[in-house]
Amino acid sequence: MNSTLKIDACFSPYLYPVYADTESIVVVIDVFRATSAICVAFANGAEKIIPVASVEEAMQYKQQGMLAGAERNAIKLEGFDFGNSPYDYMGEHVKGKTIALTTTNGTQAIEAARQAYKVVIGSFLNIDVLCDWLIKQNRNVLLLCSGWKNKFNLEDSLFAGAVTQQMLDKSKNYSLGDGCLALKYLYEIGKDKPTKFLNYSMHKQRFANLHLKKDIRYCLMPNSAPVVPVLEGKFLMKARL
Amino acid sequence: MNSTLKIDACFSPYLYPVYADTESIVVVIDVFRATSAICVAFANGAEKIIPVASVEEAMQYKQQGMLAGAERNAIKLEGFDFGNSPYDYMGEHVKGKTIALTTTNGTQAIEAARQAYKVVIGSFLNIDVLCDWLIKQNRNVLLLCSGWKNKFNLEDSLFAGAVTQQMLDKSKNYSLGDGCLALKYLYEIGKDKPTKFLNYSMHKQRFANLHLKKDIRYCLMPNSAPVVPVLEGKFLMKARL
Repeated sequence: MNSTLKIDACFSPYLYPVYADTESIVVVIDVFRATSAICVAFANGAEKIIPVASVEEAMQYKQQGMLAGAERNAIKLEGFDFGNSPYDYMGEHVKGKTIALTTTNGTQAIEAARQAYKVVIGSFLNIDVLCDWLIKQNRNVLLLCSGWKNKFNLEDSLFAGAVTQQMLDKSKNYSLGDGCLALKYLYEIGKDKPTKFLNYSMHKQRFANLHLKKDIRYCLMPNSAPVVPVLEGKFLMKARL
Repeated sequence: MNSTLKIDACFSPYLYPVYADTESIVVVIDVFRATSAICVAFANGAEKIIPVASVEEAMQYKQQGMLAGAERNAIKLEGFDFGNSPYDYMGEHVKGKTIALTTTNGTQAIEAARQAYKVVIGSFLNIDVLCDWLIKQNRNVLLLCSGWKNKFNLEDSLFAGAVTQQMLDKSKNYSLGDGCLALKYLYEIGKDKPTKFLNYSMHKQRFANLHLKKDIRYCLMPNSAPVVPVLEGKFLMKARL
């Protein structure tokens, strides 16, 4: 069988217009921590998430009585129920709820890709079900790394490399753009010791003194939240698997 | 000694505004083939190169009696003296000349970075002298990969990884942004067999049937054109080493 479908990677929401088309499924990736937190919320029974770009929008939802999460520069903003720690979204308190969410990077990437054919959420926490779901769709895939303030980051890229490798392992139907090809090599180097691999990356400086070691460890645990959040209009919803 | 300077990489001219500052030296990279060709022209005695974004500008210079090169989609345009093959710029015919040049990617990246503190040209052909020169400047460095039509490409990234590694080998003065960190890993994998490493990348499809094997082989030969072209106003000139 020839490779008829393509996987590529885009390293920044800012660069998305260059890669955008109306046919591909876009996987939004923000490993530390927005897309990990979103997966956890759905795995804990959240009904819907409304990703919004601005703090003001999130606050409007909050004032309407909705649960709302807001993070900027890795810190939970005052007046909100949650930040972007996956631990904020574990437990009965999210069950059946609709939650508005704004974050520094992840929700900006969702915003950038809103016009895509379909937008789904990826993290190590849902990698296996995500790849199975993507393969079932039988479409081109664009892995959109949220990065950090529109710059490339290592953790989102490592994960995009992991998805690339798993897609190739599970299907012969995909060829790779140069971005994914590079990430596949990157993942080859980082896969056995991801925490060590990420040790020299910028997130260490950004997260210094914020006591996020526990979060980081959790966000690197494959398949601990096996759900596929899909954007439907303004809502993220759990796809039926 | 602490690392006081920073090297980072930007994977597309389109993304340059996110990385731009007024302090860093920007190394423009277009391995296949614009920045390789520029190094060859200077190594063969060219006096100045005028990089321009559009074919129309290049043609105006040509009509003024200047030598002019123009390439789009890997093909030399009709009516011009040269394309972007390094072989076009070898020999006595470029000695002492000023040459206008426009290419699909490389000259667009130069255009994007024009306001930077300093813009220099990088390719495998000048890698050692380039790194020595960069270290002497004692400044932050941004490696600007031209990519292909604003998308990430593997060959420019491989070279940026090679520069990163050599800078670290030659000086303890640099810390790495996440982009360079990723490329350092990439280079680690690709360095021993670069041609093979690049074998699955998109340039193979783009260059198919164009008989560019000889060009590709040449563009991967380290230090065959040991010059450092620097942008001074509208001209690229050979830096004194």
